[in-house]
Amino acid sequence: MAIKAYVLVVADPGKTKGVLEVVRRIEGVTESHEVMGPYDIVAEIHVENLTDIPAILGDKIRRIAGIQSTTSRVTLPD
Amino acid sequence: MAIKAYVLVVADPGKTKGVLEVVRRIEGVTESHEVMGPYDIVAEIHVENLTDIPAILGDKIRRIAGIQSTTSRVTLPD
Amino acid sequence: MAIKAYVLVVADPGKTKGVLEVVRRIEGVTESHEVMGPYDIVAEIHVENLTDIPAILGDKIRRIAGIQSTTSRVTLPD
Amino acid sequence: MAIKAYVLVVADPGKTKGVLEVVRRIEGVTESHEVMGPYDIVAEIHVENLTDIPAILGDKIRRIAGIQSTTSRVTLPD
Amino acid sequence: MAIKAYVLVVADPGKTKGVLEVVRRIEGVTESHEVMGPYDIVAEIHVENLTDIPAILGDKIRRIAGIQSTTSRVTLPD
Amino acid sequence: MAIKAYVLVVADPGKTKGVLEVVRRIEGVTESHEVMGPYDIVAEIHVENLTDIPAILGDKIRRIAGIQSTTSRVTLPD
Amino acid sequence: MAIKAYVLVVADPGKTKGVLEVVRRIEGVTESHEVMGPYDIVAEIHVENLTDIPAILGDKIRRIAGIQSTTSRVTLPD
Amino acid sequence: MAIKAYVLVVADPGKTKGVLEVVRRIEGVTESHEVMGPYDIVAEIHVENLTDIPAILGDKIRRIAGIQSTTSRVTLPD
Repeated sequence: MAIKAYVLVVADPGKTKGVLEVVRRIEGVTESHEVMGPYDIVAEIHVENLTDIPAILGDKIRRIAGIQSTTSRVTLPD
Repeated sequence: MAIKAYVLVVADPGKTKGVLEVVRRIEGVTESHEVMGPYDIVAEIHVENLTDIPAILGDKIRRIAGIQSTTSRVTLPD
Repeated sequence: MAIKAYVLVVADPGKTKGVLEVVRRIEGVTESHEVMGPYDIVAEIHVENLTDIPAILGDKIRRIAGIQSTTSRVTLPD
Repeated sequence: MAIKAYVLVVADPGKTKGVLEVVRRIEGVTESHEVMGPYDIVAEIHVENLTDIPAILGDKIRRIAGIQSTTSRVTLPD
Repeated sequence: MAIKAYVLVVADPGKTKGVLEVVRRIEGVTESHEVMGPYDIVAEIHVENLTDIPAILGDKIRRIAGIQSTTSRVTLPD
Repeated sequence: MAIKAYVLVVADPGKTKGVLEVVRRIEGVTESHEVMGPYDIVAEIHVENLTDIPAILGDKIRRIAGIQSTTSRVTLPD
Repeated sequence: MAIKAYVLVVADPGKTKGVLEVVRRIEGVTESHEVMGPYDIVAEIHVENLTDIPAILGDKIRRIAGIQSTTSRVTLPD
Repeated sequence: MAIKAYVLVVADPGKTKGVLEVVRRIEGVTESHEVMGPYDIVAEIHVENLTDIPAILGDKIRRIAGIQSTTSRVTLPD
């Protein structure tokens, strides 16, 4: 049973569009949009297990140049 | 062209599950999950126009008993 | 020379429209709008002196039923 | 392999000590302390799986009278 | 019918006055003031449609050197 | 050597003045002022030891009716 | 009649002590302490008029290297 | 009687793992974990006295390259 998580990204003001394009190409990211702050991008990710999140979040998303910080909200099973 | 918005809900600690059930039955809410604070519920809504949001947010979601506050993030067109 | 201040209001979710109507009738409030959280209402006030703010903010706006909290941003002279 | 989570609790100002005592008796809560805001209590919980958290957080901790809100930080596996 | 939005800007501490001057010259920005944090500048923008905001916010305001982050509050129609 | 701490208080919007008067009469509180949010009152307290703070903060200040929440900042020795 | 204001400073983690020393030498700053985040330094300033604040805050404090951001709370007259 | 404190660290998105390793080697840090924002690392420290905290926090933790900011929560004696 898959886990869904929302990743809220604060990007450098001048690089938001470029960050958004890179985020969208990451495997596991199913949808991503620009929103109007305090977070600048919302990305939705779907993984099989909680232990899959560090690989996507830490090794992929958080290494993109132009990202200032990220906050993640893992959904709870109903 | 539809607009997507994320509604982040802070619910009374003892009423989160009940609020979630009511939120899920509101027309325009396409998906809703419990997450682990500072927001307790994330709801995704899809509307045709920005002017459709007050009816869903103000007249439906924000009137549910057990909701303390809401914050919304409207996505920007690419 | 007048001072402008922005008052950001968090209102009870079900009472925002009613609070907005009362805020708009307060002398010194020149404009007021509903926005989509974390603050629910932005009011603009114009006063002659900083010492006029407590009367409007403390005695008028903050006494309206349905207001949870307020934050004010006084503009600095250029 | 157990998962550790930190639960940050905002309590009613006059009921913090009582809430702390109840939190400490909940199974899965291994340690709990009063701290000096914006969160008032930090509780550490240890569970076997992520799916054990809703039972402790939603059914036990968040139902305690005197709790205003909670935020949880689940630790990631190294 | 025009839409009004408030853009709250955090600027580099030593560059606030310079950022303010550039913000004021952007078309669509009708008023802008320095305030005393956590946001440093409040700008008011007026646009015809929600879809006009990305051009002003993303292409103009957020590209100014010395801006750390921005948050926007779009007003809702009454 | 005395420790100084700043207590930032969020008060019920209609009760700030009354809370301020009660805070000022508490022993250990050397100064207290109304400010313009997100905190509504700043109180300065002076104590001999860190262990004196719970008595003032938990037993005195936080029990005042009309206080929603408090945050404290203990100063560090130079 | 003098106005008191609290300036809350976020400093670069490795430069807090140096920033504190510079802040303490600024005229109008009557007291300044290191605290334990989210703000790192609290400075108290006393001025004769609100219009004296931009000179101290904008031209002196906010130009110190190692300051990330500042927030100010002006006290209201009783 | 020892004092426990929680240090919440925001790290540069691409350097969290490296910062975590350095934090874990600091004397007085008994446990440290990566969590999913807005703080990225939680470190638990145990000291004998409040006056031991500046040496660990200011001279050790806050000087690590890749740390953006820290917030500390000192636990109160029961």
